[in-house]
Amino acid sequence: MSVMESRAATFDKPQFEQLMAKRFFYTPAFEIYGGVAGLYDYGPPGSSLQSNILHAWRQHFIVEEDMLELDTTIMTLSDVLVTSGHVAKFSDWMCKDVKTGEIFRADHLVEAVLEARLKGDKEARGIAEAPVAVEDDKKKKKKKVASTAIKLSDEEVKETEYVLAQIDNYSGAELGELIRKFKIVNPETKNEVSEPEEFNLMFSNSIGPTGYLKGYLRPETAQGHFVNFSRLLEFNNGKVPFASAQIGRSFRNEISPRQGLLRVREFTMAEIEHFVDPLDKRHARFSEVKDLKLSLLPKDVQLEGKTELVEMTVGDAVDKQIIDNETLGYFIGRIHLFLVSIGIDPSRLRFRQHMDNEMAHYAADCWDAEIQSSYGWIECVGCADRSAYDLSVHAEKTKQRLSVQVLLPEPVIETKLACTWDKKTVGMAFKKEAGAVMAHVEALDQDKLTALKTELESNGKYTVTVGEASHEILAAYVKIEPKTTKTNIREFTPNVIEPSFGIGRILYSVLEHSFWRRESDSARQVLSLPTAVAPFKCLIVPISNNPELSRAAHELSLKMRKAGIACRVDDSGASIGKRYSRNDELGTPFGATVDFASVKNGTITLRERDTTEQLIGSIDEVISVISQLVKGQIDWSKATGILPAYSGEQDVE
Amino acid sequence: MSVMESRAATFDKPQFEQLMAKRFFYTPAFEIYGGVAGLYDYGPPGSSLQSNILHAWRQHFIVEEDMLELDTTIMTLSDVLVTSGHVAKFSDWMCKDVKTGEIFRADHLVEAVLEARLKGDKEARGIAEAPVAVEDDKKKKKKKVASTAIKLSDEEVKETEYVLAQIDNYSGAELGELIRKFKIVNPETKNEVSEPEEFNLMFSNSIGPTGYLKGYLRPETAQGHFVNFSRLLEFNNGKVPFASAQIGRSFRNEISPRQGLLRVREFTMAEIEHFVDPLDKRHARFSEVKDLKLSLLPKDVQLEGKTELVEMTVGDAVDKQIIDNETLGYFIGRIHLFLVSIGIDPSRLRFRQHMDNEMAHYAADCWDAEIQSSYGWIECVGCADRSAYDLSVHAEKTKQRLSVQVLLPEPVIETKLACTWDKKTVGMAFKKEAGAVMAHVEALDQDKLTALKTELESNGKYTVTVGEASHEILAAYVKIEPKTTKTNIREFTPNVIEPSFGIGRILYSVLEHSFWRRESDSARQVLSLPTAVAPFKCLIVPISNNPELSRAAHELSLKMRKAGIACRVDDSGASIGKRYSRNDELGTPFGATVDFASVKNGTITLRERDTTEQLIGSIDEVISVISQLVKGQIDWSKATGILPAYSGEQDVE
Repeated sequence: MSVMESRAATFDKPQFEQLMAKRFFYTPAFEIYGGVAGLYDYGPPGSSLQSNILHAWRQHFIVEEDMLELDTTIMTLSDVLVTSGHVAKFSDWMCKDVKTGEIFRADHLVEAVLEARLKGDKEARGIAEAPVAVEDDKKKKKKKVASTAIKLSDEEVKETEYVLAQIDNYSGAELGELIRKFKIVNPETKNEVSEPEEFNLMFSNSIGPTGYLKGYLRPETAQGHFVNFSRLLEFNNGKVPFASAQIGRSFRNEISPRQGLLRVREFTMAEIEHFVDPLDKRHARFSEVKDLKLSLLPKDVQLEGKTELVEMTVGDAVDKQIIDNETLGYFIGRIHLFLVSIGIDPSRLRFRQHMDNEMAHYAADCWDAEIQSSYGWIECVGCADRSAYDLSVHAEKTKQRLSVQVLLPEPVIETKLACTWDKKTVGMAFKKEAGAVMAHVEALDQDKLTALKTELESNGKYTVTVGEASHEILAAYVKIEPKTTKTNIREFTPNVIEPSFGIGRILYSVLEHSFWRRESDSARQVLSLPTAVAPFKCLIVPISNNPELSRAAHELSLKMRKAGIACRVDDSGASIGKRYSRNDELGTPFGATVDFASVKNGTITLRERDTTEQLIGSIDEVISVISQLVKGQIDWSKATGILPAYSGEQDVE
Repeated sequence: MSVMESRAATFDKPQFEQLMAKRFFYTPAFEIYGGVAGLYDYGPPGSSLQSNILHAWRQHFIVEEDMLELDTTIMTLSDVLVTSGHVAKFSDWMCKDVKTGEIFRADHLVEAVLEARLKGDKEARGIAEAPVAVEDDKKKKKKKVASTAIKLSDEEVKETEYVLAQIDNYSGAELGELIRKFKIVNPETKNEVSEPEEFNLMFSNSIGPTGYLKGYLRPETAQGHFVNFSRLLEFNNGKVPFASAQIGRSFRNEISPRQGLLRVREFTMAEIEHFVDPLDKRHARFSEVKDLKLSLLPKDVQLEGKTELVEMTVGDAVDKQIIDNETLGYFIGRIHLFLVSIGIDPSRLRFRQHMDNEMAHYAADCWDAEIQSSYGWIECVGCADRSAYDLSVHAEKTKQRLSVQVLLPEPVIETKLACTWDKKTVGMAFKKEAGAVMAHVEALDQDKLTALKTELESNGKYTVTVGEASHEILAAYVKIEPKTTKTNIREFTPNVIEPSFGIGRILYSVLEHSFWRRESDSARQVLSLPTAVAPFKCLIVPISNNPELSRAAHELSLKMRKAGIACRVDDSGASIGKRYSRNDELGTPFGATVDFASVKNGTITLRERDTTEQLIGSIDEVISVISQLVKGQIDWSKATGILPAYSGEQDVE
C-alpha cells in the first residue's frame, strides 16, 4: 500500500474535522451568532494555504502562459446575466413540506430517501456496508433519513439504482413524477411535499437608491471577461489566441448547503478564458503535455453505465478524438500538473467527460477534474469548450463588435450579384417599410437574387413577403448586377476554452489528502502539505522559556523572514513534543530548535515534519538549507547530504 | 521645483484619463451595456498594479509584523451588523426633486449649489480661479451646476464659506434647514427638493430560499475579525498584543457615486485589527518609527479654521499627546512608510486628525492618511483607536466571552460584603421575580450593601425597587457577611487599533502621482511607477519582425520569467519608438531590445524608462542586472556602473 493509499484507507473524518476547527483552518462564519449554512471563514492557516494555492495558480497559469489578468466587479448588471442565460436558467428545483413549509432541494430529497431505501433493503438482506472512507457522508445523511430494514423487490432495487445513477439530470417535472411514483414524503414529518418549483440561485440586489436598477452577485467570474473582450483584444494587439484570467469571489444562493466547504454560498474561483480561432484549435505548447498520462472517464464508458477509468496520454486522447482538440487537451494536462503539484493524490484524480445531455447546448466538449475525498468524487475544476456562445450573445444584444479580424494570406476575390437601389423611389413606394424591404432583398441568397433579377427583367415586378406584409418591387427601384469584391480580411468570433477552478473545493481536497496519523500514536496527526503551499514553512522553538533563548528565537525569526521564509516562533510554555505536534497539525514542514548550544555555539537543529528526522548546523547553514527547501531547489533527502544528522547530544560546556 | 512638484503642476487630467482607458488600467464595468455608476473593472495593467500593491502590503504589514491573516465572508448575517450599529447608522441623506423624482445626496447637492454661487460671486467680482491641478473636478461639477456671475453680499460669502467648511458634519435635519435657508433647488429643473431622508448604504440580501434570513454585503471587513476574536486569541496562545489582517472586497450602495475610482460601490480594502491591553498601549517596535517626520493636521489646528500642516516626528507627536498613544503612532508611521514605498509623493501626503464631532462616540483617537490628487485631499487610510467598543457589543449580544485573561504578577486579596441566600424562602417569596431580585441586590455597591445589612439587622426588613416593582427583603432571606477572595487573573476586553486601507483610492493616487509628460514632446506620456509595483517589469522588443529575432525574443522572455521577472514581448509591427512609448505608458521600468547583434554576439540592450538611458551586455548579464533591479538590490545608477552605456552602434558583421 502506497503512502497515499494508506492515508485514504485510514482517514478518520471526525478527527480531521476536529483538527480543522481546533487549528482554525476554517470555521462556520458568524459562529458566535449561530452560523449560517454554506458560509465559512478561513483562519490564519486556512487563509495562508489559500493564498499559497492562489500564488501557485498564478505562477502556473498566468505567469507561465503570459495570460492577461482581470479584476472585475462581483455586483453584476442584471442585463448581462439576462443575456448570458443565468436569469432564466441558473436555478435548482425546490419543494416544500405542504404542512410545515420546510424547504428541500428536490433532487437531494429524492436522492436521500431512495438511498435510505436501498440501505434498508441491504440491511434486510444482510449485505455488508461500503468501506469507511466514503461512508461517512452517508452516515450523516442517515441522521436525517433513517433507513429501516425493509426488503425491496429485485425490480424495485434496479429501478431505484437507475434513478440514483441519473439523479443530476432530471428536470423539475421529472423530479415531481419521481416524488409521486416513489411516494416520497418529508422523512421527518411524513407530510407530503409540493410539486418542485424553480429557485434561481443568484443573490439579487437593487443598485442605488431608486430601486429600478437591478443587479446580481455574479455566479461565476466568466461574464466579466466576456464583456471586456474588445479591450482585452486591443491590449493583445488584436491577435488571438490569448487568454484572460481572473481570481475572485462568486456567489450561489444554495437551497440547502451541505458537505462543508464543498457546497457553499460564497466561494473563490479562478477562471481562465482562452480565446481561439475556431478553425485552428491547435496549441503551440501541446508537445509539452502530450506524453502526460491521465485517468479519463470518457462519455462512452459512462453511457455503458460503467465508471472504469481509462489510462491514456493526452496526445492519444486527442488523436483518438476522445478529447475534442489540442487546446482543450493542453489545459486538461496543465490542470493535472497543477493539482498534483499542490498536493492532490494523482490516484484520486480523474477527468470525467460530460454526457451530451449534461452539457450546455452550445458546448463542444467538457471535462471535469474530479477529486475523490470522503464525500466521493467531487467536481473541482471544469474545463469546457464553450464555442462562440458567450461572445455571440453579448455582441448580438449590445450591437458591439466582439470579433477578431485577421489578414488573409491571399485576398479572396468573388463576383456576386449586388443591388443598387434608387432610394428616393423606394422610399416613396414603401415609406417606413423601405429599410426592411431593402434589407430583406439584400439578405437573399444568390439563387433567389438571380430569380429576382430574371423576373424583374422579364415581368418588371416581383413580390416579396417581409414579415406578414407583401410588397411589390418594380424594376425601376433596383438594379441587380454582378459585382467583384476583393476581401483581405477574415472576421470571426473566437471560441472560448474555459478552465474554471473551485478554489475552496481544491483546498479542502488537498487538506484531506495530506492528513494522516502517526503509527506510533494515532492521536498524533500530521498534515503533509507540500512545502510550496504549507501555511508556514518553519516553526522556531526555543527549548525552554529562558529569556535568553526566547530572544535568540526572535532574532532567528527576523533573520529567516529577511530570507523570505514564512516562520512562526512558538515560545508558549508547552513541552517541545507538544509544540512539534501542534506544528505537524498545521502542516509546517520544518522546525528549528533553539537551545543553549545555539547561544553558545551558534548551532540549531532542523527537524522535518514527515520523517521527524533532525539535522544540525550553524544558524546560517540551516537558514540556507531551509531557503533552498522552500524554493524547491532541493528536497529533504538532498538536505540530509548537506547537514549532519543530529544525535541528540551537544557539547554545551 | 522638484520632480514630484513638477508632475503635480503640469498634470493634465483629460490626457491622464485617456491613458487609463486606452491602456486598460481600468474601465467602467459593463461598458458595452452602458456601464453602472460606481462600478469599475481593472484590466491587465490595473489588476497587476493592484496585485503588486497588495503583495507589498502583505510583506510590509502581515509578514514583517507577523499578523494573523483572515479571509471571512462578504455576505454578512444581519444580526452582526445590527450589533455593530451599521443597520441603524450606516447611511447618507438623500433628497428628491419633488416633481421628477431625481435623487440627490443631500450634502453633495448643498455643496455643489453653494460652490457654484461662490464661483458666480468670484466671476462677478473678477477674481481669478484656483490653479488647474485641483480645479478640474470643479469643472466637472460646473457642467451640472452652472455658475452665474451674481455678486453675493460679504456676509453671504462668509456664511456660504462657513457652511462649505463644515459640509461633512451636518445631520439630515440640518441639511434640510440649509436647503430651506439657502433656497436650494434642483439646479437643472429648478424644482424644489424634498426633506432629506436616510438611505442605508448597505446592499441587503435574502439568504436561502425561505426569505426569512437576512444578510448584507459587508461595508468593511472589520466585523469578520471581531466575530472570530476567540479563535484568533486561541491561535495566538491566549496572548495580546496581536493583530489580525484581511484583504477583501467590501460594498457601499452609494446614492450618487462620483470622482471615478475614489467613490465606488464595490472596492478592495486591507484592514488590520491590532488587539492591545487598554492599560498598556506601548509598542515594542516604536523606536523604529519614532524619528520619522510626518505632516500632521491636528484637530486643534482645524478648530481654528486652519489647514497649515505641522511637521513633527512620530516620537514628538506621541510625547506631546497630539497622537494618543505609541501603538497608534507606530501604525501611523508604518502607513507613511508603506505609502511612500509604493509611489505616493510624500509632499502630497498628510495625516489629518478627526475632530471630536467627526469621530464615533467610542473612538479614542482617529487619524486619516489623506493624499492630494486632482480631486483635492482624499482620505485613503483611516487609523483609529476604536477602544473596546466592537468586542464589547458582540460579547454582550452573543453572551460569549470576547476577552483576555492574564496572570497577575501578584495575587489581589480583597475582603468584601457578599450575600448568601436562603434560596427556597426567596423563591417562595418572590416566585419568578426571585432571580431578578437577587441579581439586583448582588449588583449593589459596597456602601449600599452595608446599609442593607445594617437595616436588616436593625429592622429585619429592607425594600428594594427592581424595574417598576417594589420588593420587601426579610432578614431570613439572606446573610450579608464579609468574604475574602484572592484573584490571580486579570480579565479585560482588548482595545482595537484599526488601520484600514482603501486600496482603489491608493492605487488611483499612485497612478496620478506617477504620471508626467516628456518635455521634448508632451504627447509622450510616462507612468514612473516604482519598480516594485509596476505591472510589468521588462518589455522585450525585437528590433524588426524578422522571425529569427522574434524567436530570440520569446526565448529571452522564457529565461526572464524563469528568473522571476514579469516581462512581456512586443513583437507587433509598430516602430521601436512607438513600442517604447506604449511601454512608458504602462509604467514598465525596463526595456530589452533584441537585434541581430543579439543573435550573433549574444548581447542585448537595456533601456530605463525615466531617463531613456541604454546599457548593453550579454543576455545573462542583463538578466542578472534586471533581476537585482526588480528585487530592489540595486538602483539604476548602480546598474550604470555594472554595464557599459550603449553607444547605438554594434559590430554585427
